[in-house]
Amino acid sequence: MGRALAQAAVDLGHDVVVVSGPVDVTYPEAATVRAVVTTDELLAACAETFPHCDGLIAAAAPCDYRPVRVARDKMSKTGAPIELRLVETPDVVATLAAAKTHQWIVGFALETEDPRYRALVKLERKQCDLMVSNGPKAMHAIDNEVELIDPSGAVVGAFAGPKEVVAAEILAVIQQRLVVASRGTPTWTASRRRV
Amino acid sequence: MGRALAQAAVDLGHDVVVVSGPVDVTYPEAATVRAVVTTDELLAACAETFPHCDGLIAAAAPCDYRPVRVARDKMSKTGAPIELRLVETPDVVATLAAAKTHQWIVGFALETEDPRYRALVKLERKQCDLMVSNGPKAMHAIDNEVELIDPSGAVVGAFAGPKEVVAAEILAVIQQRLVVASRGTPTWTASRRRV
Repeated sequence: MGRALAQAAVDLGHDVVVVSGPVDVTYPEAATVRAVVTTDELLAACAETFPHCDGLIAAAAPCDYRPVRVARDKMSKTGAPIELRLVETPDVVATLAAAKTHQWIVGFALETEDPRYRALVKLERKQCDLMVSNGPKAMHAIDNEVELIDPSGAVVGAFAGPKEVVAAEILAVIQQRLVVASRGTPTWTASRRRV
Repeated sequence: MGRALAQAAVDLGHDVVVVSGPVDVTYPEAATVRAVVTTDELLAACAETFPHCDGLIAAAAPCDYRPVRVARDKMSKTGAPIELRLVETPDVVATLAAAKTHQWIVGFALETEDPRYRALVKLERKQCDLMVSNGPKAMHAIDNEVELIDPSGAVVGAFAGPKEVVAAEILAVIQQRLVVASRGTPTWTASRRRV
């Protein structure tokens, strides 16, 4: 989905920076790709890039937890159970949102229960301008099925189909509601916006 | 490595059954592939197939642990740490070895400390006829570097290079020391052996 969104943004003439975890995906050549591994690295790279951007589409699914202790060597089995102590990683979108100046933010929510309600709660907590709600069927799939939810809780778009098509639809809504709006007047300019 | 070993065994004229976890690998067309996900499923599929085989090459790296409880729905963050309780999965090779009749077994060991010593301990615990010792550099790599250890602890082969080449070398040793030996006389027959 990240690749499809990057391509759709490139197609609209935006300068695109992709901050990506270690996934087996080929991003558009026109995009600048910053590779990260951990959620902490994702936040650091985004915090560096975000001030120079006009908007953020947060489609990554970073790890919500990290182990407190990481073994340096391979652990041998002992026959006994093990307890893995995990602590939460930072909330990347909420952290960036707290520092936003003029940027619009589009979040992604993947929930298995009450998806529409939870997407709105997420939108508020992460101060997003739009939340894209999709389900677990989105993972490792060709197709996706999404609802776009605005800050009032209204469903302002519902798209299904190949991820490339869904991404183009999402970008069209972003373009109309956020990019054009943030320019003050709805006139198109030749200047490229950084997403 | 599993794909390369399957290909090398096919090349030697063996009937090959691959029991494979969910990996992004294309196995040789001549091989029968049985797809599994969990370590329990791996053991079940192998236990069914093993009695009809002449040998086992155990190159899979199944999960050593499984969570005691699996959430049905996506868990929401609460701000608090979580404790993941994990218990050991069954030892697939040791379980098969305990039921072996005439089969030879080649195990794989990937250790980061004392690899040669630990490979021998593993060979004994899992009743293997040979143990292939390789390191963490083998993972997601084109090349591999292995040592073959026999039940006396002797290093009877050391190969490095592309996995296809290393697999062919390993199969050559297996062919000479285990397949031919298990036929009683070192004469080659046209009959295909099941691996």
